[in-house]
Amino acid sequence: MPELRRDPIVGRWVIISTERAKRPFDFAPEDETPKGGFCPFDAGNEKTTPPEITAYRARGTQPNSPGWTLRVVANKFPALIIEGNLNKVGEGLYDKMNGIGAHEVIIETPNHEETLSTMPPERFADVLRAYRDRIIDLSKDSRFQYILIFKNQGRAAGASLEHSHSQLIALPVIPEIAHEELNGSKKYYDYKDRCVYCDIVRQEQEAKIRVVIENQDFLVCCPFAPRSPFEVWIIPKSHNAVYTETEESKFFSLAQIFSETLKRLDKALTNRPYNFMLHTSPIKEFHRDYYHWHFEIVPKLTRIAGFEWGSGFYINPSPPEEAAKYLREVSLEEEK
Amino acid sequence: MPELRRDPIVGRWVIISTERAKRPFDFAPEDETPKGGFCPFDAGNEKTTPPEITAYRARGTQPNSPGWTLRVVANKFPALIIEGNLNKVGEGLYDKMNGIGAHEVIIETPNHEETLSTMPPERFADVLRAYRDRIIDLSKDSRFQYILIFKNQGRAAGASLEHSHSQLIALPVIPEIAHEELNGSKKYYDYKDRCVYCDIVRQEQEAKIRVVIENQDFLVCCPFAPRSPFEVWIIPKSHNAVYTETEESKFFSLAQIFSETLKRLDKALTNRPYNFMLHTSPIKEFHRDYYHWHFEIVPKLTRIAGFEWGSGFYINPSPPEEAAKYLREVSLEEEK
Repeated sequence: MPELRRDPIVGRWVIISTERAKRPFDFAPEDETPKGGFCPFDAGNEKTTPPEITAYRARGTQPNSPGWTLRVVANKFPALIIEGNLNKVGEGLYDKMNGIGAHEVIIETPNHEETLSTMPPERFADVLRAYRDRIIDLSKDSRFQYILIFKNQGRAAGASLEHSHSQLIALPVIPEIAHEELNGSKKYYDYKDRCVYCDIVRQEQEAKIRVVIENQDFLVCCPFAPRSPFEVWIIPKSHNAVYTETEESKFFSLAQIFSETLKRLDKALTNRPYNFMLHTSPIKEFHRDYYHWHFEIVPKLTRIAGFEWGSGFYINPSPPEEAAKYLREVSLEEEK
Repeated sequence: MPELRRDPIVGRWVIISTERAKRPFDFAPEDETPKGGFCPFDAGNEKTTPPEITAYRARGTQPNSPGWTLRVVANKFPALIIEGNLNKVGEGLYDKMNGIGAHEVIIETPNHEETLSTMPPERFADVLRAYRDRIIDLSKDSRFQYILIFKNQGRAAGASLEHSHSQLIALPVIPEIAHEELNGSKKYYDYKDRCVYCDIVRQEQEAKIRVVIENQDFLVCCPFAPRSPFEVWIIPKSHNAVYTETEESKFFSLAQIFSETLKRLDKALTNRPYNFMLHTSPIKEFHRDYYHWHFEIVPKLTRIAGFEWGSGFYINPSPPEEAAKYLREVSLEEEK
């Protein structure tokens, strides 16, 4: 059973996997990048993954067989496990609980070569709907407090399988980063009586210098204080704290602008690895007035080193104004 | 002039280098590791670094010439610059200031092949004294609030030069991580009337399972909730918030145990890259009652990916109890 442990000073949580504990020689050096070979996420290999939790598939096709365009399965090597009780206990001055949670994989495509930036926006919209559906379903489990959706694209960004997929982890506690955003946006709201994200959208639309693209519903911009070069946020223009409440009509609009954003990043940075994370309300409290859901995309271009570990500061060698300009001006036309 | 910018939601600071701004194609893929060739930190090459700020050198030898065992020089490519005023201003809802600070390099040895774990503890003690001396000197500059000492060992841990060195960055604001530790340890003190680090030392000495080594003055242990596999902390046994107040007699004791710790890590993890950071009080307020200086060593064995970015949680596949056992039991005898 994995364990959730809290640092007694700063309150940071860590998941300690006790079952597949690694010994010193289990940590492969960074540059080992096995490629090719058998892929459990390819169409036809459905039986090699845990059974599907949900799938978007052609009428008449059977679960765990071909005919799907998107599958959600349990992670075969979960960081947290779904069965059991939290059993919160102390150990002297330390706090811990059982590593209860859900860890699912959203297989975004049956096609090994396709990525989010190359698939048609209609199918990308299905991925975004699958995020919603899984959050709604897992919200019914009273043990969970927060559901995090994220994607690791490319090995250097943490993907252990090349085939395009995102992940979901349901947590029994609200994570640090969500706390910080909820507290920060509440403080701003208490002072200004406005949502800080709505104010950011307004200011960025006026200033224009950090905007990458926008459509009727969403603004894509490089944030004012990005941790990473070419960090990009996708923010809905109308105020809403809760991703799962996004109107059905907006998923295609989100998929279109998300797809174009990834295309621009892929082109500007020649397909470098990236992570993206959905930031949305905890599932039991919606923080409606002051929070505002959004996606954050962080390309993997720099390293976390001693300065970042020791300070929580980030050194970013690319001003977001210049990154936004590159991303705006990159040509998406196919070269011949 | 680099810029310090604050994220308007979570208050995180970033340093935006505007001068050596990087374009998309300036980010080299991770596995490019140039080696060998000219090293500006080698003895004899003193003229190729910025002039020395201080040095430990043989009597009668001239600054910026051979004869030294340790040199401190300004970083040739500083993240922050030393000259100018902070000029704190707003930009709509955003906050920024000039990137004023000091960025120094502690060249730990004149010998390109030597590392902290292979040099004699007497010389390691000088490195630890140099940290103290530089913090004391820079504390006189009223623009600075915090001085961070850190080391990136190995390219994957962020070192751009192979030659053994540590770094110092003096900051005009107290960084996030220091804030979190100061707040957390104050909360514990307010509730318990005891220092949380002193309590950790006591509990770890009793439990023994996470202790790596100890001597009269210092305890080396794997923390209860480590972010990284084989993370190790070095904590002074007697309460003191301020590193620069360490008694002269203790530097050798610290060097001895620090050296053995690095030797054990090098042996167990076959010289994998690591970062270490000195955690000490801000320079204007000492937080004497509840804070407690210490070193944190974080080996570079896992990646920061979407889950960590999105949650602030860490997934650690090595329980600290097992890591401590490996480190205790590793043989430091030379193999023949």
